[in-house]
Amino acid sequence: MQIAILIFDRLTALDAVGPYEVLSRLPGAELSFVAAKPGIKTADTGRLSLEAQRSIAEVQNPDVIVVPGGEGNRPLLADQPMLSWLRSAHAGSRFTTSVCTGSLVLGAAGILDGLRATSHWAYLEYLESFGATPVSERVVEDGKVITAAGVSSGIDMALHLAARLAGEEVAKTIQLGIEYDPAPPFDSGSPDKADPSLVEAVRRLEPGLEREPQAG
Amino acid sequence: MQIAILIFDRLTALDAVGPYEVLSRLPGAELSFVAAKPGIKTADTGRLSLEAQRSIAEVQNPDVIVVPGGEGNRPLLADQPMLSWLRSAHAGSRFTTSVCTGSLVLGAAGILDGLRATSHWAYLEYLESFGATPVSERVVEDGKVITAAGVSSGIDMALHLAARLAGEEVAKTIQLGIEYDPAPPFDSGSPDKADPSLVEAVRRLEPGLEREPQAG
Repeated sequence: MQIAILIFDRLTALDAVGPYEVLSRLPGAELSFVAAKPGIKTADTGRLSLEAQRSIAEVQNPDVIVVPGGEGNRPLLADQPMLSWLRSAHAGSRFTTSVCTGSLVLGAAGILDGLRATSHWAYLEYLESFGATPVSERVVEDGKVITAAGVSSGIDMALHLAARLAGEEVAKTIQLGIEYDPAPPFDSGSPDKADPSLVEAVRRLEPGLEREPQAG
Repeated sequence: MQIAILIFDRLTALDAVGPYEVLSRLPGAELSFVAAKPGIKTADTGRLSLEAQRSIAEVQNPDVIVVPGGEGNRPLLADQPMLSWLRSAHAGSRFTTSVCTGSLVLGAAGILDGLRATSHWAYLEYLESFGATPVSERVVEDGKVITAAGVSSGIDMALHLAARLAGEEVAKTIQLGIEYDPAPPFDSGSPDKADPSLVEAVRRLEPGLEREPQAG
């Protein structure tokens, strides 16, 4: 089973590494980080580097595709070779997935047209422009397309996906192995729960697609 | 504020990247991945590479130290130059922290002697041999030493630490930015909650320190 996690410069590292930590533990999984060109990609803070082992051209038929978010994925929305690869890979995939603003890239490739989907909460509204129905849920599955909310939700998405691929017992074993029994010290992880002033503060940092987003 | 996340070959990537994703968003933080020697370190699955920008010799006085887990940290338990660096850095740190089996390295450096501490659940018992009192909690703070449970708990630990360093409002803003409102699809993330057969299965993969652990 071939799993391809797409990476690029200025990605949000946890978007990719959360799913990686879960999916790399799947029995029989052959997981690669892939990019337009192999090599070192630097995360959005500039302090973390991840290596893409393979080019997208070398990975034509992955069973699973994971597209993470981060401001560096905005150029991909108009990158025709990348979008063409995504459409072609999606045609043969078992599951095509995204974390955070990765769903915008799936949208730009036409993959979300007519589907329910999610994204980082500050970007949810943009899904409509790709023909998708935005859904404010942590993990949204519609057919073989699974989209996740912001950054940390990739861990939840990947456990959901692990169960689809290998059964619940395997997924639960992975959850126990990574001791994923979350206990955030605050209840401020979604705009429904956080103080409105914090929601505004984060929204200013994540100003959407038109205004050159700074992070996401 | 200088934050040093120690990395090494065969680390568990999420142990380091979870805290990184939180702490790199702290205003004024200068975060580095550090190692005995700078360069590329490969995670325990061999599919993910992280770059250490600086050697431990270049980072003598970090404000915050984060030591992750992974089978690759076992050699550090007897690595005198590394343990000496940790003791010296700890003497001047504001906070000295660990994720997963990173607490065993703190223990080997003598930093946990007389303190309450935690680790990945399958390794908790080993803390006693370092003079620590093992505590089965997700995040354990004792003085300026903060230890976290297995792998994914580093996110919770880092939010706790972010509040200590920059106040609750900053920590809550970071939590909202990474949309950390976890919703695991199963309730199998701790040995108290998982099916006993899964606990045994994971314990076989994490056989402790004497029997050449395979993962963790």
